[in-house]
Amino acid sequence: MEKTKIPYKIYLEEHEMPKDWYNVRADMKVKPAPLLDPITKKPITKEALQKVFCDELVEQELDDTNAYISIPQEIRDFYKMFRPSPLVRAYCLEKKLGTPAKIYYKFEGNNTSGSHKLNSAIAQAYYAKEQGLKGVTTETGAGQWGTALSMACSYFGLDCNVFMVKCSYEQKPFRREVMRTYGASVTPSPSTTTEVGRKILEEFPDTNGSLGCAISEAVESAMNKDGYRYVLGSVLNQVLLHQSVIGLECKTAMDKYGIKPDIIIGCAGGGSNLGGLISPFMGEQLRGQKSYRFIAVEPESCPSLSRGKYAYDYCDTGKVCPLAKMYTLGSGYMPAPSHAGGLRYHGMNPVLSELYDQGLMEAVTVKQTEVFEAAEYFARVEGILPAPESSHAIRIAIDEAKKCIETGEEKTILFGLTGTGYFDMYAYEKFHNGVMNDYTPTDEEIAVALNKLPNIE
Amino acid sequence: MEKTKIPYKIYLEEHEMPKDWYNVRADMKVKPAPLLDPITKKPITKEALQKVFCDELVEQELDDTNAYISIPQEIRDFYKMFRPSPLVRAYCLEKKLGTPAKIYYKFEGNNTSGSHKLNSAIAQAYYAKEQGLKGVTTETGAGQWGTALSMACSYFGLDCNVFMVKCSYEQKPFRREVMRTYGASVTPSPSTTTEVGRKILEEFPDTNGSLGCAISEAVESAMNKDGYRYVLGSVLNQVLLHQSVIGLECKTAMDKYGIKPDIIIGCAGGGSNLGGLISPFMGEQLRGQKSYRFIAVEPESCPSLSRGKYAYDYCDTGKVCPLAKMYTLGSGYMPAPSHAGGLRYHGMNPVLSELYDQGLMEAVTVKQTEVFEAAEYFARVEGILPAPESSHAIRIAIDEAKKCIETGEEKTILFGLTGTGYFDMYAYEKFHNGVMNDYTPTDEEIAVALNKLPNIE
Repeated sequence: MEKTKIPYKIYLEEHEMPKDWYNVRADMKVKPAPLLDPITKKPITKEALQKVFCDELVEQELDDTNAYISIPQEIRDFYKMFRPSPLVRAYCLEKKLGTPAKIYYKFEGNNTSGSHKLNSAIAQAYYAKEQGLKGVTTETGAGQWGTALSMACSYFGLDCNVFMVKCSYEQKPFRREVMRTYGASVTPSPSTTTEVGRKILEEFPDTNGSLGCAISEAVESAMNKDGYRYVLGSVLNQVLLHQSVIGLECKTAMDKYGIKPDIIIGCAGGGSNLGGLISPFMGEQLRGQKSYRFIAVEPESCPSLSRGKYAYDYCDTGKVCPLAKMYTLGSGYMPAPSHAGGLRYHGMNPVLSELYDQGLMEAVTVKQTEVFEAAEYFARVEGILPAPESSHAIRIAIDEAKKCIETGEEKTILFGLTGTGYFDMYAYEKFHNGVMNDYTPTDEEIAVALNKLPNIE
Repeated sequence: MEKTKIPYKIYLEEHEMPKDWYNVRADMKVKPAPLLDPITKKPITKEALQKVFCDELVEQELDDTNAYISIPQEIRDFYKMFRPSPLVRAYCLEKKLGTPAKIYYKFEGNNTSGSHKLNSAIAQAYYAKEQGLKGVTTETGAGQWGTALSMACSYFGLDCNVFMVKCSYEQKPFRREVMRTYGASVTPSPSTTTEVGRKILEEFPDTNGSLGCAISEAVESAMNKDGYRYVLGSVLNQVLLHQSVIGLECKTAMDKYGIKPDIIIGCAGGGSNLGGLISPFMGEQLRGQKSYRFIAVEPESCPSLSRGKYAYDYCDTGKVCPLAKMYTLGSGYMPAPSHAGGLRYHGMNPVLSELYDQGLMEAVTVKQTEVFEAAEYFARVEGILPAPESSHAIRIAIDEAKKCIETGEEKTILFGLTGTGYFDMYAYEKFHNGVMNDYTPTDEEIAVALNKLPNIE
């Protein structure tokens, strides 16, 4: 039961903001499988990981026992610049739909990176700075992570080199300028600046690039430069840990008003937003305290949970990264150039993969045009122009709210609105002009990609 | 004295949000001069104004006696979707500058229009809807007002026709797509769709357009269409009234924490943001309760307060609008194509003009490159990518804070951060590439333009 009239937007007070991140692995009975060394195919050592990643982030990556990890004061101070993010009651959307459902969304777009990515970027930049590094390298798909990392690096005075997936680089020239505003260098990927990039270009000269390619290039680049490490905006467990700030704020706000969501929905590419949003709620479920329905929404063109295999696979196309056990379409899978660049990843974070495998989470896929229909509808009704990625969650939230019209159920629906679409107007233009395509990979395509998975027991 | 530790961001509770707009004219002893009919050159009648503007908005335009005007519930509900806007304590900026000054800014950019313009857009759309109109026409410079109006019209189911200043239309194709997302039609101005547009194109075939031209086209278009009225995003007194919500929220938040600003700074194009921000503070000053230093910041290329004349002038290039007594550079003045499209207007709101003439407000001009230097600095330090318009205020706020370093004074500085620069990356790119020009009109240019002012006593 709701205790009081819920405001349109719930902002926590500064003192209510989380002081610790929550590590859902601590509450999992069956833990996600360990990362494997790409050379030996044995569980990777801390030392090997530290050649690629910052020391403290390796500790976090491997920690599956501590439920709470303290957020350093410098990071909490930075969080105060753009957090708490509002938990919004979608009164207008409910009214327009005529649904008895109560819809809430946690809006992470009110910062210059335009998404939730800043939550982890500032943490990763902080630990790089603490370690005395000169800079970091990374990849970016839609450009949100690259922008977030540029902002974080600028704040701590670190050099920032971004490999940007080629199709996004071309569709979003202004994203590059935002990153330059924050002093970052941006290279379209695949590029000729790395060995792995040249190799990919040789094999696929017309490729639009993919997150998998860009990751390989960024890792190679970091390992060849003194005082640099690689950082990643999704997929890794450390990222889920940092992003738990989303779910923690959300839960505090909901508890404060006595709201309990029945369904929690998030878009899923590498899993950073979905994992961050659901972590504290999933924790309650794992501890047997409460139960929720969790839904991961994937693009039809890149359905790693829905149509992939739970197996060890490379995290990147160039096979230079550790292997992770995850739901995957195969590291060689080249997703169609959809407009949700942030969801074009072949695999899924290992924690989410394991939770999905245990039947604790559902997954659905949606077509691109259906996503943009929902995006435009939402923009008009709720006044926020959503990112294509976020609009995957909107689509399913609307569908679930519509089901409540039929059944009369007053379900409480919570979804993650990860970001804004200001840099996605090229995609919106295609949608307005009726020239946007949908793409569903055939069973054969998927089978071919899965056949190339490394054979590891 | 500050009572308690000030949070990074102050958000009012819903119940603390203003229920009335504040009309500063009520507290002015010398009122702004009346609008004149463009044909008779006599004070314009309510009936004549109602041919151009919505009935209720005409009432508000002419009301210089009622200090408080109730905000209709529907508008207050819409406000709740994107307001209250945060009052931000710029702790990071203060630290980076090493200033003893305390800096605050009221950030109006956290909505899809990207600026404060939505405050008045929703009010104007509401009254158009109440009057049973089919739609409205308007002009837009930088595109923020056009976007805001598109959103407001979409909310109330009104048709929306936007004339967009040509140079902005070309520099910002994605702005057009945002407006289309909200169902608006967008025409570059000057266009061949109106008589006045054709006339201007004949005289200046290579013109980049100006707000003055676009206004003429929008007015003509509205008057020729059944069930349409013209709406305007700045300059008018009704707009200042709606925008007072900025200053009212600001004052409530500051009073709550016992903060009293010494200096209040805003960028000034037509005056909508500046007027809205300062109104309640100016009211206190006019009533003899408190005193403040108010600074209007203008672009060096379009210095209406700083170098214009206080005289009756046309509000538009085509001379179809009423005449207003205001600081003006002449309605024929064609400002250089700077990147702060929202400030390229030849005149200044009559209320602000009168206050400035009474010596109650200062005005300064800043060069475009100095503005972008401040913008980039601010983006890196405070994490918000500001609009070029807003960055005019940032420039002066930083300069004032630097003066405090020299004098050791702990002044409290408040400025209006009107919007975000996500659609201004073309301008940022020019700045990054070192190809941005400054432009200072010569005395002769100004004199030539002022010579063409209509001769009215």
